[in-house]
Amino acid sequence: MTIKNDLILRAARGEKTERTPVWLMRQAGRILPEYREVRAKMGGFKELVETPEFACEVTIQPVDILGVDAAIIFSDILVIPEAMGLPYQMIEAKGPWFEKTIKSEDDIKQLRVAKPEDLHYVIDAIKLTKKELNGRVPLIGFAGAPWTIFAYMIEGSGSKTFSKAKKFLYTQPVLAHQLLQKITDSTINYLKGQIVAGADMLQLFDSWAGVLSPEQYKEFSLKYISQICNAITEVPFTVFAKDAHFARVEMGKLSCDTIGLDWTMDIAESRRLIGENKTLQGNIDPCLLYSDYDVIKKEAIKMLKAFGPHRHIANLGHGLYPDLEKDKVKCFVDTVKEFRF
Amino acid sequence: MTIKNDLILRAARGEKTERTPVWLMRQAGRILPEYREVRAKMGGFKELVETPEFACEVTIQPVDILGVDAAIIFSDILVIPEAMGLPYQMIEAKGPWFEKTIKSEDDIKQLRVAKPEDLHYVIDAIKLTKKELNGRVPLIGFAGAPWTIFAYMIEGSGSKTFSKAKKFLYTQPVLAHQLLQKITDSTINYLKGQIVAGADMLQLFDSWAGVLSPEQYKEFSLKYISQICNAITEVPFTVFAKDAHFARVEMGKLSCDTIGLDWTMDIAESRRLIGENKTLQGNIDPCLLYSDYDVIKKEAIKMLKAFGPHRHIANLGHGLYPDLEKDKVKCFVDTVKEFRF
Repeated sequence: MTIKNDLILRAARGEKTERTPVWLMRQAGRILPEYREVRAKMGGFKELVETPEFACEVTIQPVDILGVDAAIIFSDILVIPEAMGLPYQMIEAKGPWFEKTIKSEDDIKQLRVAKPEDLHYVIDAIKLTKKELNGRVPLIGFAGAPWTIFAYMIEGSGSKTFSKAKKFLYTQPVLAHQLLQKITDSTINYLKGQIVAGADMLQLFDSWAGVLSPEQYKEFSLKYISQICNAITEVPFTVFAKDAHFARVEMGKLSCDTIGLDWTMDIAESRRLIGENKTLQGNIDPCLLYSDYDVIKKEAIKMLKAFGPHRHIANLGHGLYPDLEKDKVKCFVDTVKEFRF
Repeated sequence: MTIKNDLILRAARGEKTERTPVWLMRQAGRILPEYREVRAKMGGFKELVETPEFACEVTIQPVDILGVDAAIIFSDILVIPEAMGLPYQMIEAKGPWFEKTIKSEDDIKQLRVAKPEDLHYVIDAIKLTKKELNGRVPLIGFAGAPWTIFAYMIEGSGSKTFSKAKKFLYTQPVLAHQLLQKITDSTINYLKGQIVAGADMLQLFDSWAGVLSPEQYKEFSLKYISQICNAITEVPFTVFAKDAHFARVEMGKLSCDTIGLDWTMDIAESRRLIGENKTLQGNIDPCLLYSDYDVIKKEAIKMLKAFGPHRHIANLGHGLYPDLEKDKVKCFVDTVKEFRF
């Protein structure tokens, strides 16, 4: 199927585009009243993730309402641990919670390597969304990076420090590598399944990159991200490692197309560290969107100019916060879409 | 009074020392059974902070038990908002909580500029501790950096994103500067009072530096840190801005003696960015101290070599975590003290 608006795919491949494309992390979510309506009908967040019809509906909402240049499939990075044999609950206002966590070699041995059929509900949601989008914009698939998934599997919940997961790295490095490899193999299977189902582009989220030292990050995260980048050759691939300021030189050497930046990373410095051969994605502070409209416009244009006309996909430096106003979010999107170099 | 072990003061001033000095952020605290004993006698954390005899006792414990090269007065950065008129509670396992937060210009006008006498319990604890230490090691005083204090005063509690505080910066910058100036004036008064009471060295903690963009950090944090650095000329002064990787060049230009590094900051790169005219402090990942003894020793020595023999004060890149074992913490301290270049 031909994609009518393929700006993002072309920007990722380093081709010139008539304007900078834009999408927003967490664009399908609570900032949209239309999302909250669908969500209110469901028993919980996971039911929404696991019901392809509803996941499809909320995936397409921001394309209709905000006018973004891509859809991203509504799902969750923690579907992978669940598919491997570690189920979780999403507790309102608290976040994810795992009843069982990984403590021993035996726990790791009991985990399955996930296959796309273990995640049929995501695969079906992608197929359905592709059909419903009918080529309007590309559909982005995603997964968590192995370190971030590992962190939840050991810690059992969110954490400020992920000190249990880090303790595991320091005290049981051999087992840590076993588990990370199993997560990596599962993730490659899963992403390949997303491509077969129709994903036009993929993104890996390393949400907890920033708690590791540069050395540990190379050993326990980049090594596995690199395997995934090497395995995914079919579609443009983005790596977003939040707070991994210290790994930008190494990120430039990955065989992916695009590197996501958070808002603490200076744009010119990041370009210098990452090199010219990657598209950069980002990096407005989500809190900017609390500002008045004129401030949002001014800062959006400043960001666009700092990245320059090529190899840039406009986005935030993190996901949208749920209490942001839809109209201000749309103001950011519109500013990017109206701007010409 | 002459200080017998003045290694830290000399290292801060850039003088050569026979070995690298060492202390640990949160060295007075829950890792010590002796601390937990004192703590169990009290009604709560704040009672301990506000009772000079007990604060003095737990301040000296790590000097006796761990053999560190400095004591740091047992207190809390949130005594400043309280002295300005915004009381807080410390809720077990949850953290600080303010009943009233700052929302308007009127709220800011009602705040006092704190004077040392508003914080007499800290001043008395410093005087008592100086007497009890009897010149064994220097006593470090401290305060929170204005942005971090501001963040709590707006947010009313801890937060992953401090999005309310950041929203205030984006939407009410003029009021934000008014409040930051009032906090800065209070902090200078407070630190001057600590010097008069006997503090041999001071440290400013910017715990939430990492949630701001480089530009906002310059405008809303560094500007006020700089005022404080310029005002404190009597004793060596350290600035530790956690996660402010993007501000290292500017930190090198502050009129302080020492810059603290967290463990995500590469040591050689930080030295290059900050320059040769500052002592660097840090920067072991607290989670390293979960490792086996041989790993702790190896990594401690690797860190010492990376910093080199001059202008380094060994420390962690953040405070000790409460579940670390005392003997492993001591292993780190001993390794630093035994090492010679």
